[in-house]
Amino acid sequence: MNQERVKRVLDNMNAQELSQIVICDPAAIFFLTGRFIAPGERLLALYLNQNGNHKILINRLFTVPEDLGVEKLWFSDTDDSIALLNSCIDHTAALGIDKIMPARFLLPLMNLCCATKYVEASVCVDKVRSRKDRAECEMMQKVSRINDLAMAEFIKNVRLGVTERQMASTMEETYRSLGADGYSFEPLIAFGKNAAMGHHEPDGTPLCEGDCVLLDVGCKKDGYCADMTRTFFFHHVSEEHRKIYDLVRKANKTAEALIHPGVKFCDIDAAGRNVIEAAGFGKQFTHRIGHSIGIEVHEVGDVSSANTDEVRPGMTFSVEPGIYVDGEVGVRVEDLILVTETGCEVLNRYPKELIILK
Amino acid sequence: MNQERVKRVLDNMNAQELSQIVICDPAAIFFLTGRFIAPGERLLALYLNQNGNHKILINRLFTVPEDLGVEKLWFSDTDDSIALLNSCIDHTAALGIDKIMPARFLLPLMNLCCATKYVEASVCVDKVRSRKDRAECEMMQKVSRINDLAMAEFIKNVRLGVTERQMASTMEETYRSLGADGYSFEPLIAFGKNAAMGHHEPDGTPLCEGDCVLLDVGCKKDGYCADMTRTFFFHHVSEEHRKIYDLVRKANKTAEALIHPGVKFCDIDAAGRNVIEAAGFGKQFTHRIGHSIGIEVHEVGDVSSANTDEVRPGMTFSVEPGIYVDGEVGVRVEDLILVTETGCEVLNRYPKELIILK
Repeated sequence: MNQERVKRVLDNMNAQELSQIVICDPAAIFFLTGRFIAPGERLLALYLNQNGNHKILINRLFTVPEDLGVEKLWFSDTDDSIALLNSCIDHTAALGIDKIMPARFLLPLMNLCCATKYVEASVCVDKVRSRKDRAECEMMQKVSRINDLAMAEFIKNVRLGVTERQMASTMEETYRSLGADGYSFEPLIAFGKNAAMGHHEPDGTPLCEGDCVLLDVGCKKDGYCADMTRTFFFHHVSEEHRKIYDLVRKANKTAEALIHPGVKFCDIDAAGRNVIEAAGFGKQFTHRIGHSIGIEVHEVGDVSSANTDEVRPGMTFSVEPGIYVDGEVGVRVEDLILVTETGCEVLNRYPKELIILK
Repeated sequence: MNQERVKRVLDNMNAQELSQIVICDPAAIFFLTGRFIAPGERLLALYLNQNGNHKILINRLFTVPEDLGVEKLWFSDTDDSIALLNSCIDHTAALGIDKIMPARFLLPLMNLCCATKYVEASVCVDKVRSRKDRAECEMMQKVSRINDLAMAEFIKNVRLGVTERQMASTMEETYRSLGADGYSFEPLIAFGKNAAMGHHEPDGTPLCEGDCVLLDVGCKKDGYCADMTRTFFFHHVSEEHRKIYDLVRKANKTAEALIHPGVKFCDIDAAGRNVIEAAGFGKQFTHRIGHSIGIEVHEVGDVSSANTDEVRPGMTFSVEPGIYVDGEVGVRVEDLILVTETGCEVLNRYPKELIILK
């Protein structure tokens, strides 16, 4: 385990008067042990205790020969893994619970009365994860660099009649050829009115003249995620669509210009949103302006009106305002941001000027 | 909603004296409403009550214009979705909870004292899902037919020096060209000793003469999943490996021959396992012999020594014995099975004889 990170988690637990925690999130376990295990519907649990008696419970189905710096407790599909977990827990104390622990493990564990109370305590890990250390910052820079290069490759496939799915079909190979390990998420590719739909999946829609081309794409490298959106237009752009594009770009840049240690997440959201609302498109900007990112594409820490926390050096998150006009067009411009000691670094360098593809 | 399916869920709840349930599993919601929504880290909840006052809670981020046959309660990222869910619940009764409901929703809901007790009650839905109705059986046949055809295509790419990842890179397109909607899971492709590792991901390993070629692959069509494994050998096979292959195939066929309504899942597992244990390879068969499948690749209902339930018509599951010799070879042979009124239908028709690819 990364002892420095574990120590910071234990310190956060201490501040909450928690002596023990069960961590199930594979991303959190990767963060602490350096090993990513995808357990599917099976239990995977890292148990931490202030007394140093840490354990990790792993199904025998997963091949983990290496030393993780923590005692491994193996079990099989036919074993009672909840009883095994219960045997690790101090029944006389409160127990921190991972936010993603599913009811099929949590309710049986609670039925065994394994602790005096149960506290959703992922924040103890998430606070540590939210401020990337130097090694992590370098990973975030590197993977966004690859994403910039990939965007330049992707638009070479834009041509009359190409379908969203055809565009998608070569992207993973492009990422790999640039040194990435694969997607950080399935690419969102939307032409024309499809771009106005939330979470539209690439389909057989062919590209037509005048369509917008929205590419929301990201790759993964060494466990860390990129995520960037650019919106292009094909052949020509109407005056109205140009106005929408300029507004979104201005919202993106206005929000990014505000970022430095101490500013509140909600104020970043407001800065971008005000630009769009002032122009009368407030109702067409239907989501928060961004989300934290790192080992996972979405990490704890919305960039939204609901988050009054202040940003700190080492935090990484997206800034992605958008305007969506039903049945017509969608525009989003998204960068990843790394907060520095004095301001911020925009991790994506791919141009944001309006580009009309021919 | 599919009223017939909802009625069967409510009947199962009734037998457990449950008047209400919160269903979060997107697969269960698809099963009941016909609409698949992937909520990511956001709440998606279908609330069912015996009094007919059903609701579905959906984040505004998701575009669901169609009538789902149930009242939609919309919320935004900045709304308190747990308070909204709490407002639907009868506080004077017990509450059924979905097995996948994560602690970040369940613990706050419990803190609101929204019910008299909390019961992991997914079984009420899962029992209905486990016995596929006629429409579902046809889907399962259709998608496995595509998987059979795809396997024949995949092996055309087997050649000296090809890497596992190269084999993987064209598979999704092959599936689509055969009419599938995409993967049911990322393909597991393992050459030689990689095949002995549980859940090995395709990497840059090049194919060498004498290697086994293990392909564990599946596609999805209209919401239903295929899943099949075949193991080939490249250029030649040693006597020892041929013996292992024959054992695994015999275990597969012995287990399948036993399947008819009334037989216990554990007895299917035992039938296959006995073949392998009798030959002294028991320790090298490291997992349950199969799993239920349908809308999800892994559904509730292990085919393992721990499951004493009897199989019933309409159930669909895998039979996939394997032998894994560390550092050397792995062989698995897997079909999907549909239980019929009098026996079973093996949904995969792709040959199981030892095939040596040149």
